Amino acid sequence: MSGEGHVKAKAPQYPYFTEEASAEVVNARMGQEADPRLREVMGTIVKHLHAAVKEIEPTHEEWLTAIKFLTAVGQMCTDWRQEYILLSDVLGVSMLVDSINHRRPSGATENTILGPFYVPEAPRYDHGTNICLDGKGEPLVVTGRVLDTDGKPIAGALVDVWQTNDDGFYDVQQKGVQPDWNLRGVFTTNEAGEYWYRSSKPRFYPIPDDGPVGKLLGALGRHPNRAAHIHFIVSAEGYDPVITHIFSPDCEYLDQDAVFGVKDSLIAKFERVTDADRAQALEFDEPFWSVNWEFVLASKKDTK
Amino acid sequence: MSGEGHVKAKAPQYPYFTEEASAEVVNARMGQEADPRLREVMGTIVKHLHAAVKEIEPTHEEWLTAIKFLTAVGQMCTDWRQEYILLSDVLGVSMLVDSINHRRPSGATENTILGPFYVPEAPRYDHGTNICLDGKGEPLVVTGRVLDTDGKPIAGALVDVWQTNDDGFYDVQQKGVQPDWNLRGVFTTNEAGEYWYRSSKPRFYPIPDDGPVGKLLGALGRHPNRAAHIHFIVSAEGYDPVITHIFSPDCEYLDQDAVFGVKDSLIAKFERVTDADRAQALEFDEPFWSVNWEFVLASKKDTK
Ligand SMILES: [Fe+2]
Ligand SMILES: [Fe+2]
Repeated sequence: MSGEGHVKAKAPQYPYFTEEASAEVVNARMGQEADPRLREVMGTIVKHLHAAVKEIEPTHEEWLTAIKFLTAVGQMCTDWRQEYILLSDVLGVSMLVDSINHRRPSGATENTILGPFYVPEAPRYDHGTNICLDGKGEPLVVTGRVLDTDGKPIAGALVDVWQTNDDGFYDVQQKGVQPDWNLRGVFTTNEAGEYWYRSSKPRFYPIPDDGPVGKLLGALGRHPNRAAHIHFIVSAEGYDPVITHIFSPDCEYLDQDAVFGVKDSLIAKFERVTDADRAQALEFDEPFWSVNWEFVLASKKDTK
Repeated sequence: MSGEGHVKAKAPQYPYFTEEASAEVVNARMGQEADPRLREVMGTIVKHLHAAVKEIEPTHEEWLTAIKFLTAVGQMCTDWRQEYILLSDVLGVSMLVDSINHRRPSGATENTILGPFYVPEAPRYDHGTNICLDGKGEPLVVTGRVLDTDGKPIAGALVDVWQTNDDGFYDVQQKGVQPDWNLRGVFTTNEAGEYWYRSSKPRFYPIPDDGPVGKLLGALGRHPNRAAHIHFIVSAEGYDPVITHIFSPDCEYLDQDAVFGVKDSLIAKFERVTDADRAQALEFDEPFWSVNWEFVLASKKDTK
């Protein structure tokens, strides 16, 4: 309190800043005319932001480091690079938002993140097509079914798949290098709910780590690698579509996926096969890999 | 849980993502070799970030709106515009960090934010100098003392002052329009701890509101105006310097300062004076304004 000259103020609920009531002071300032959802969202953000600052007690230099980091993340963004989504990914926020928005009845295949490399309208193929157009990597045959939560096959379901090539890049990251639509395709289940196709065994790959998010990962003692996976979007009339992956259990990054995409229920059994007759029928060299996976879709009415 | 093909995983403490333990999963990934303070800071940020997301339950569209906003804030930043500091300011974070770093013994003048317009090495003036070089606004005489926490005058203290002109701009915002060093100066207290100078009555002014932060303020039903204030940095050998403001109590934005800079103890009495002799002595037109303010400095050893 300064000496002479101080005027005691009139007092609405939170007229002036105090360290104790800092979040309440800020939130009391929102106008009643503001959108109710925005008031709710910003009120919650301010509450947790102030709680975090009070717990951290940053020095002025630390605060400035945070300001500079957030600025650099924004300035790394271009039309083809979204560093803030990357930050959300490596802090587990993208997975959390995905989980919150895809709570499904028990037994239905769990969601995981879409990722930045999905391309709609991939070619529709007949069963058995080999989508590995560059011939790289170890051959893989993928078989399986699409079922409802009662275990009944769903005919006519679409199984939209994509993965990196054996160099760890999606086709769209290497236009002109990889064949167009390499390792992408859409398959339709038959009357028994079955699908199958040929491909290559997925491998781990790094998320872009040449920006501020990569630097943060480095400082945290983390690596940028995603555990080996195949992406799927499985959809059928009347069912809630599922955006998901399957993971290869022998990947060294399985329990340390850089974006936390791995869920226990999404780890598949990839079998190494030495069987000359099967290999010949599939036009594969030996040994090859085989994975069988059943997707379980929740009906639209069971999903929140 | 998918059907056939699922492999039960080996389990470290938090191997895979779950909605319930989402923050713990992310924080368990930090390496033991990471800087301990960075581990502490990021652990706290992730904990509160995930708590906020769980409370908000954003839709995918709301999450994308947040991503786009954070990106736009970064992209608004230039060498002369720091939109993330502005965001920190309007969310009360800058004031909170300032408070945390300037807890003083009771009785000492409280800190408030420095703001972006401080210029070091302003001219040193004799007592009584009129720093209002453009002659705009209502004349103001500022008098006062600098004391220690025992009420003893501090001689030789520096009183570094700055404020906007009556159009609401700092000199550095209008180079070539306002005289150089308009409304800035450094005064030195005499043996009685006194200082005095002439200036103009401060007025409210808006923070830059043509960027994403301004849009957010608008959506929240808030305005961009700072309550009328004069900036001070008061320092003396052996004492903790104080970065602060005094506020004019008749400002319509006093209890709604856009950056929450107002503290109850920093509101001064600005008196409107009609006194022909005093006016003549000050070379002021009547009426003029007068404010008397005592700064109380904590000794360095009393300050954490
Ligand atoms: Fe991927
Ligand atoms: Fe100011």
